[in-house]
Formats: sequence, structure tokens, C-alpha cells
Amino acid sequence: MTVEEIVLQITKSAKKAAAAVACASTAAKNDALKAIADKITDQAPYIQSQNVLDLEAARKSGLSDAMIDRLTVGDDTITAMAAGLMEVAGLQDPVGSSDGTWIRPNGLEVSRVRIPLGVIGIVYESRPNVTIDAAGLCLKSGNAVILRGGSEAIHSNRALAESISDALSKTRLPENAVQVIPVTDRIAINVLLEREEEIDLIIPRGGEGLIRFVVENSKIPVLKHYKGVCHVYVDRTADMKMAGDLCFNAKVQRPGVCNAMETLLVHRDAAPVFLPEIDARFREAGVEIRGCEETCRILPTAIKAGEADWYEEYLDLILSVKVVEDVDAAMAHISRYGSHHTEAIVTADYRNAERFLREVDSSVVLVNASTRFNDGGQLGLGAEMGISTSKLHAFGPMGLKELTTTKFVVRGSGQVRT
Amino acid sequence: MTVEEIVLQITKSAKKAAAAVACASTAAKNDALKAIADKITDQAPYIQSQNVLDLEAARKSGLSDAMIDRLTVGDDTITAMAAGLMEVAGLQDPVGSSDGTWIRPNGLEVSRVRIPLGVIGIVYESRPNVTIDAAGLCLKSGNAVILRGGSEAIHSNRALAESISDALSKTRLPENAVQVIPVTDRIAINVLLEREEEIDLIIPRGGEGLIRFVVENSKIPVLKHYKGVCHVYVDRTADMKMAGDLCFNAKVQRPGVCNAMETLLVHRDAAPVFLPEIDARFREAGVEIRGCEETCRILPTAIKAGEADWYEEYLDLILSVKVVEDVDAAMAHISRYGSHHTEAIVTADYRNAERFLREVDSSVVLVNASTRFNDGGQLGLGAEMGISTSKLHAFGPMGLKELTTTKFVVRGSGQVRT
Repeated sequence: MTVEEIVLQITKSAKKAAAAVACASTAAKNDALKAIADKITDQAPYIQSQNVLDLEAARKSGLSDAMIDRLTVGDDTITAMAAGLMEVAGLQDPVGSSDGTWIRPNGLEVSRVRIPLGVIGIVYESRPNVTIDAAGLCLKSGNAVILRGGSEAIHSNRALAESISDALSKTRLPENAVQVIPVTDRIAINVLLEREEEIDLIIPRGGEGLIRFVVENSKIPVLKHYKGVCHVYVDRTADMKMAGDLCFNAKVQRPGVCNAMETLLVHRDAAPVFLPEIDARFREAGVEIRGCEETCRILPTAIKAGEADWYEEYLDLILSVKVVEDVDAAMAHISRYGSHHTEAIVTADYRNAERFLREVDSSVVLVNASTRFNDGGQLGLGAEMGISTSKLHAFGPMGLKELTTTKFVVRGSGQVRT
Repeated sequence: MTVEEIVLQITKSAKKAAAAVACASTAAKNDALKAIADKITDQAPYIQSQNVLDLEAARKSGLSDAMIDRLTVGDDTITAMAAGLMEVAGLQDPVGSSDGTWIRPNGLEVSRVRIPLGVIGIVYESRPNVTIDAAGLCLKSGNAVILRGGSEAIHSNRALAESISDALSKTRLPENAVQVIPVTDRIAINVLLEREEEIDLIIPRGGEGLIRFVVENSKIPVLKHYKGVCHVYVDRTADMKMAGDLCFNAKVQRPGVCNAMETLLVHRDAAPVFLPEIDARFREAGVEIRGCEETCRILPTAIKAGEADWYEEYLDLILSVKVVEDVDAAMAHISRYGSHHTEAIVTADYRNAERFLREVDSSVVLVNASTRFNDGGQLGLGAEMGISTSKLHAFGPMGLKELTTTKFVVRGSGQVRT
């Protein structure tokens, strides 16, 4: 079979499976998640033996240690994947619940009822655990899923796919509800992105290059975020102790993730006191500061920031710092350089807090809390599929509900339109 | 200026305007809608004089009478546009309302707050009233809008754009909140569809060719429907009088619209009685029937349907009719040939009604009611922007709420992530 034929066979069988998953009971879906969790636990030695093939190839091709770390399926990875599936099984099923029911003057009863999207395609890189995490969330929300991982993880992903198929074949869900594209040819992605007849949504997860490639080539709607250039603005009236703790947490607790702070904005009246204090903590933690002119005056060890720094998602122990005139200047900076991801203000001023929440155009805006809370679990959505920084359908973390849509259900007694 | 420069200037100023419209009060938005309504009423003679230029060109180029009818801005069109704006002014403002607020164990207060999408691009054909209707809905939902009408309506649309700008310049909303692309070059659409930096959503309205062009060329998310091949299934247990009235209404009341019935499916036990009855009414109304073999046996005057008929959106007094075994066969037919738009079942059977509502994958599913109710106004959403048959963001009629999204607003007291 050609690559095109392989992909087409997968998309068509996924569409068929989707109709069955959409009508499956919550119990049937939970049983399937449990069956997959059991199977990957049983099959751990085989999965890990296949993972070794990927790791050997990765070392030969000179992948970075960080990449190899992400690629590794250790015992803890298996445990975490199985636990994740059980956690999703415990979440409330969004399918079939109603967003509202009302009666029209002519007696028609109208409901908006939550339904699955249908077939979801996931295009991702490196981490084989995405295969399991995405499968769990898509199944629980009543969708079929097609997984296309990176070539660097192909053996691991094929092994996980076998476990999933084996597990599903013994449940009430169709085996084709979860499928992994078994070939590494790049053209398979292009074929996939053309199949609007069968696929309802594409979610790319990985570097900006992959995501831009998917957006540019997809006929199917895409949910994505390019990057998270997250800001914290420390206002004139901020509690300095609170501001220091929040900024330290936002930058240092896990610098490599998309909701870490990348730029700190400080009110000019707060800067002379706040910056030296936080700088001492940051230096101890190994954070490099790239500052505006005024920052560099206050902190002589700071490096001068260039224009490019304000756009940068460092994902590292580097922070750009700018002293600003007031909340308006802070919001103007965010509007110009931000990525609509996560922004926080630290303030004691009611009006500035409310203006920031209202006027800043980001998926999550916070007052007196760390940017690190932009996360489905932390915000109370349960597990998450990623974070969207485009506004259609989902803006911010995507939980089970964001993997569904609504249809209108109308119950009548013979009404016609006049 | 080149076409590209003209479009870029429009998209960039629209983005700037969007920030102001997003924060405008409901009163300011309603005042703006009223100002536009007053202005187009005042300027009716000028608008109509410009419309005459379009009509003359249309006649010269041999446009069909139906097309010329749609293009005409009569006194009643002006009145309807002004009334439409006032109706939208009377609808509830979705912006700022919350889809829910909850407290996390660490004390964070999380709300999902409804916000505008930002900049909406509308690409449409023929009807100049879309210029006003779309502007009204987009403004009320807090968005800026860029309108790109067809070249056949360019003089009418430019005249309407002048009225809108004049009106807005005397309100608290920015003048650039509504902009019409003043050039007819096709390339302007391509430039527009590339501007994901400034535009958040594209809505194409027009023929299938235009819509496919937009989907294939857009980097920006698109809400659309290709066509409405709507079905009514008359079950064995249907009340025959009710079924006849519903089917007649669904086909004849307004055959040229997307929610009109295109295919009638009849249970084989009901067919011998029901088909001759409804056929008599249909023949009187001038409806041509294209039937399956069994239909043609029962109705000797029916034309034999070909495979292509089952996919057809006639938008005319033509109906394809198929006799089916049971509700499963009816749903299988809909799944194969349907367009996810609108399907209705007429039945007295509880189980079949509930199965149809649950299993049919369409934006609006109805029991014992006409397909013609798939309409924002009829379903209680207020005015509508069109109907979406793709599932992301909106599935079915799009009202004001569907022109917005939600962001997460988090109020804390110093929380950090551990």
C-alpha cells in the first residue's frame, strides 16, 4: 500500500469507529480506559524494549539530552500513563449533558446537547506518553483519534498502539477508535491534513515549526498555541513580599514550560526596591536577567535586553525585565509583545486589577497569582489536552469539554413554520 | 497603494479598533447600531442611486433575475436593514457574562468570562444587506469587522460603508470598527485570508465555490456550511396528517433556503398510504418527485432518481423520495448522503424518536417539527450570522454568543504553584 492508501484506510475506519464511540455509554468508555491501563502495565517490558530502539537511534543521530529524556519510557512513565488513564476514567463524562433547554412560544422544546467532535487527529513530537494521554482524553469525550507521532518515537508508538488495540478488542469500543499511523513518511501528515471529510479537528503538539507547518497545510480546523511569552506586572501598590514570591514561582518553579514567566514588568515607583530584592533571589537560582535601560541602572549585573528579547520564549532560566510608567504602559507592552497565553498583575489597587483582567487579551489573566496556574488541572478542568492561544472553540487550557461541541435537539408536536 | 497595502492597512486598523470595541459598554454599542440605522435611512436615496449602478452592470453582464433580485436595494431593503439593527440592539449583550465561577482548593477564584473574538472577516456574495446585518451582529458582540462583498455589489457596499463610517464617527466606537474592502480584485481575498496576525475568524457566505475557495486558502479559522441536504423521515407510527403537514412545510414554504427538505425517507409500511396523499399536495404546489424504485411503483408519475439525486441540494421545488426498511435504514441513508445540517423524524414511537435525536449527527435534529426551524431566530438565539455545519466552535445557527469566546479570569491572594 502507498502511504496515501494507508492514511486513507485509517481515516475512513476512524470515521466509522467514531459513530460507535459517540454512542458508547460512560461505563463502556471507562472500562476501555481501564483495559488500556492494564494492558500497558502488563506489556511494559515489550514497550520498553521497543523504546530502546528509538533511544539508540536518537543517540546515534545526536539528539540532545533533553530530547532523549523526553523520549524515554521509564517505569515511572508507564506508571504515570496508566494512572493518567484511570484519572480520566474518574472525570465526569461531558457527552449528553445539556448547556440549556428552553421552550419557544410555539411549544418547541429546544436543548443544546453536548456531543463528541467525531475524529480528532493529533500530530506530535517526541514524548510517547502523548499517545496514551491523548487516546484517553479523546475516548472519554466520545471521539475516535488518529495519532501521528514523530519518527524518533516510532517504535515506542507502534508498541503502545499494539497494546491499545489489544485492549480495545476485548471491550465494547471498536478497535479502530484509536489508531497510530505506522509509517514515518512526512507526506503522511499532508495526506492527513487534507481529510476534512473524515477528520473534525487537528491538534498539533510540539515545536513552533511543526505547528506552523500544520496550520499552513491543514484544511481541517486546528487548535494550537505557537508559544507562551507570559508576563507578570508588578504594580506600584503590590505587596512586595507577595510579588517576590509570585515572580520567583512563575520563573523558577519549572522554567521549561509554556506558562512560565518570560518577561517581568515593574512599575517605576516599585522598581528601586523590588528589583534588587528579587534579583538576589534570582541570582541564587541562576536566573540571567536581560533588562531595559532603567533595569540595568538599578541592577548593574543585568545584561542589556535587545528588541528581540521582548518577543522571546526562553523556556530557560533567563528573564527579560522592563520598568514601566504605569498599568497602561504594562498593558501596551503585553499587547505588542505578548502571545495571548497567560498574564498576571500583582497589585493592591482595585481599579488596576479589574482593568488588567478585562483589557488584557490572553487566555488566562490573573491577579495576585502565579502564571503557572494556566493548566487544566490547576484551574479545575481535570486533565488537559494542551492550551489554545487562538480564540475559536477553545481559548486557554482544553479539557474534556473542549473536545466536544453541541447540537440542537428539538422536540415538537407537529409545529410548522409560518 | 497596491491591493496588498490597502488590505493590510484595513486589517491593522481593524485590529486596533477591535481592542476599543471589546471594552465598549453595551450602551455605546447600542447607540452605534442606532446611529447606523438612522444614517442608512437618511442616506437611502444615495445608497439606492449607487445600487442602480450595480444593477445596470448586472443586467449588462447577464446575471439571472434571481441574482438581480438579491442584489436590489429597494425601500423595503433599507427598512429591513434598519429594523434588523434595532432588533440586534435589543438583544442581550453576551460580552462580560460568565459561563461559571468556581473556587479551587487553594482559594483561587476561577471564572470563564465571555469576550469578543476580536476581528471577524466576512467574505460574501450578492446581497448588500449582509453588509449591514453582519456589521450589526459583529459590533454588538464586541468585534471589529472587515467586509468583503462581491464585485457585483461594489457600488452598493461602498455607499453602505460610507454611511457606517459617517455614523460611527459620531459615536463612542472607533470608525474603523467596520470596514469594507473598497477594491474588487480577487487577490484581496487571498491577502485577507493570510492575515492570521490580525483576523480571528473568517465567515464566508455564498455559493459552495466561494466557500471552498475560502477554506482552501485561509490560514485563519473558518466557520461555514457547504450545503444543506436536509431529510425528513416519516416513521411507521407517524401521525399521517402531521407528517403531511410537516413535509409540505419543509419542502414548499421556502424551497430556496438551506433548511428546506431535499430528501424524504418513508417507512415501507407507511409508504402505500402516505406517499399518494402527500404526492397530491406536492403536485398541486408544483413539486417534482424523484423517487427510488419502490416510490416509482407507488407513484407512477414520479421520475426515477439517480445516485446523484441523494446528494443534491435542489434549492427548488424538487424532492427526492426513498422508501426505507426502518429507522436504522433511514439513519444509514442520512449518514451516507447527509450534510450534517438538519434532519427530522415524524414518529409516535418513543424509542425511535430518542435514537434519532441521539444518533443522527446533524447540527439540528428534530422530532415532529419542520426542518425549517433550523434558524437562529426560530430557535431563540435572536438574529443569526449563518449556520455552521462544521463542529468546531459552533455547530448549527450562530447568534451573538457564537461570535464570542471565553477567557479564564483568576482572582488570587498570592497563590503560587508547588
